[in-house]
Amino acid sequence: MTLENTIQKIGPLDSAAMKAAEERQSQLTKPAGSLGRLESLSIQLAGITGEARPKFENKSIVVMAGDHGVTEEGVSAFPAEVTPQMVMNFLFGGAAINALAGVSGAKVTVVDMGVASDLPEHPGLISKRVAAGTANMVQGPAMTKEQAVQALEAGIEVVSDLKAQGVSVVGLGDMGIGNTTPSAAIACAIMGASVDEIVGRGTGVDDAGLQRKKDAVAKAIQQNGPDGQDGLDVLMKVGGFEIGGLAGVVLGAAANKMPVVVDGFITTAAAMIAAQICPAVKDYLIPSHCSQESGHEKMLAHLGLKALFDYEMRLGEGSGAAMAMPVVDAAARVLDQMVTFAEAGVSGKEE
Amino acid sequence: MTLENTIQKIGPLDSAAMKAAEERQSQLTKPAGSLGRLESLSIQLAGITGEARPKFENKSIVVMAGDHGVTEEGVSAFPAEVTPQMVMNFLFGGAAINALAGVSGAKVTVVDMGVASDLPEHPGLISKRVAAGTANMVQGPAMTKEQAVQALEAGIEVVSDLKAQGVSVVGLGDMGIGNTTPSAAIACAIMGASVDEIVGRGTGVDDAGLQRKKDAVAKAIQQNGPDGQDGLDVLMKVGGFEIGGLAGVVLGAAANKMPVVVDGFITTAAAMIAAQICPAVKDYLIPSHCSQESGHEKMLAHLGLKALFDYEMRLGEGSGAAMAMPVVDAAARVLDQMVTFAEAGVSGKEE
Repeated sequence: MTLENTIQKIGPLDSAAMKAAEERQSQLTKPAGSLGRLESLSIQLAGITGEARPKFENKSIVVMAGDHGVTEEGVSAFPAEVTPQMVMNFLFGGAAINALAGVSGAKVTVVDMGVASDLPEHPGLISKRVAAGTANMVQGPAMTKEQAVQALEAGIEVVSDLKAQGVSVVGLGDMGIGNTTPSAAIACAIMGASVDEIVGRGTGVDDAGLQRKKDAVAKAIQQNGPDGQDGLDVLMKVGGFEIGGLAGVVLGAAANKMPVVVDGFITTAAAMIAAQICPAVKDYLIPSHCSQESGHEKMLAHLGLKALFDYEMRLGEGSGAAMAMPVVDAAARVLDQMVTFAEAGVSGKEE
Repeated sequence: MTLENTIQKIGPLDSAAMKAAEERQSQLTKPAGSLGRLESLSIQLAGITGEARPKFENKSIVVMAGDHGVTEEGVSAFPAEVTPQMVMNFLFGGAAINALAGVSGAKVTVVDMGVASDLPEHPGLISKRVAAGTANMVQGPAMTKEQAVQALEAGIEVVSDLKAQGVSVVGLGDMGIGNTTPSAAIACAIMGASVDEIVGRGTGVDDAGLQRKKDAVAKAIQQNGPDGQDGLDVLMKVGGFEIGGLAGVVLGAAANKMPVVVDGFITTAAAMIAAQICPAVKDYLIPSHCSQESGHEKMLAHLGLKALFDYEMRLGEGSGAAMAMPVVDAAARVLDQMVTFAEAGVSGKEE
């Protein structure tokens, strides 16, 4: 599906399904409102899917990988060779995201959006390579406009394929050494925020590395002048291939009436790009954790989101999104499986 | 097992298992510390179980029910008949706790500790009835010392039986119309806190009901003069049968080297009683949510706990504990299932 067609398919949430869910919540055997955010989440899930009692049996965390020319600037604590190494770790099941996705039985979908080196073939690897890593955004645009569209459409295709396979909720995950740097640039460009507000230590750079990151973000924005109102322009100038792919997953999920669970700093930057391209996607976003990375909370707030939890995590890979899958499950199960006061013969509140 | 024997069996966490877990966490394929509280939780779980890589395949939420003489004072928004009605709802699988326990596959264990009316027989119901509800604590002790010991030992027996059945982690849940009132009295007695700091709206009393609750708690403490240093004295004078049973579950879990997940206001009061009886149990407690009920956060802090999440819930039944089970699972899975940098051939941080 093209980007244009996808955007046209994205509509508002289904108000009839939301009303039905809200009414049911008020009749279930519990004090009204006593399940807090699980109740509001269940109503949102009804609105997204158009079903009064949605179920989420098949889940997937979509982990997209890409490399970044900006690593030349010394912005990461880890060498770029870790990107392909970790992709293979995902495929062999030894990474954090594999362990965490297992908690809710979510499948880990691994996509090469543009890793710099060739990856060994693996039946589990989906190749949507746009190019062998982005260009160094400090010196010019990270990618061409055509590449940005290609990345977005690849994400749309991946999530549409998952939908066809019966997946009903997706979580976003990322892998790409250096990718907190373009993500920070995206947030600065879209929010008009300063580098001090947004740039953090990523996987753990020291003070000198943090300064190099801030300089790189500031230079990339100065050099390229991204238009913060234009998501495609931001992606092209200071983005990344996996970030574009993830923005495409957000757009494609919304077009397919699927909830999409945001992870941490990088995937939130991707969601911000998607929301600049099509603001209606915001209603399809489910928050997960608040990352330890500076600026994440503000980025979530910019999207109208409030994190569900904060476990002091800063890993990426979709680790926070995986931890939110049981919360999505819980919200849907409460709405679907609980009985009403009338059904259970339980007395109501004394008025 | 008697209370005395149980207390003697409770020791400190296993430091060798904790050291092994900590060392393994530092070698797994992620930036050191990047999984935050999941890492520290995994180390605690190793210390509790004495296993370097503990697994939690069989989980149970122990929901204990009891009635409270203090409901005569008009302290609850719901009539006391709801206690047995909700117990039957748990047994038939229609309550929130059934839906939420299902997320992690936890079994709901339902125990009658002292519901006022006779309950219909049900194969799933464990009867440990101490009496048909407590006495009204505003007029005198809620129970006798013998009843308090009986309630504690019933809880110890329930959790020991679960351990024998292969359950490796338990969560605490409660049902008892009016039970936020004795729970508040317990917290006030043990913490030396004022009723204004601790008493909240429970299932939803109005302003007049809230004042009646505050008055009831203040009168019960004045009337009975519980010794805040003596957990048994507090339980006897201003407690409840389900609260005593839950305190017994905490003691029994610690004696059996099992982690025990605290829920909200009532179960935290139960854990406070257990901790006054045997301070070493604190290390065996896993927090879950911060409840909407006033004072809960302070009660958790008194136990040295910080909630994992806050979904604006205020239901009880073990609903928060059930939501924490996937977090326990996640922590254990990360420790057990992830591979090390060496095993995966992934490059480490650049120094």
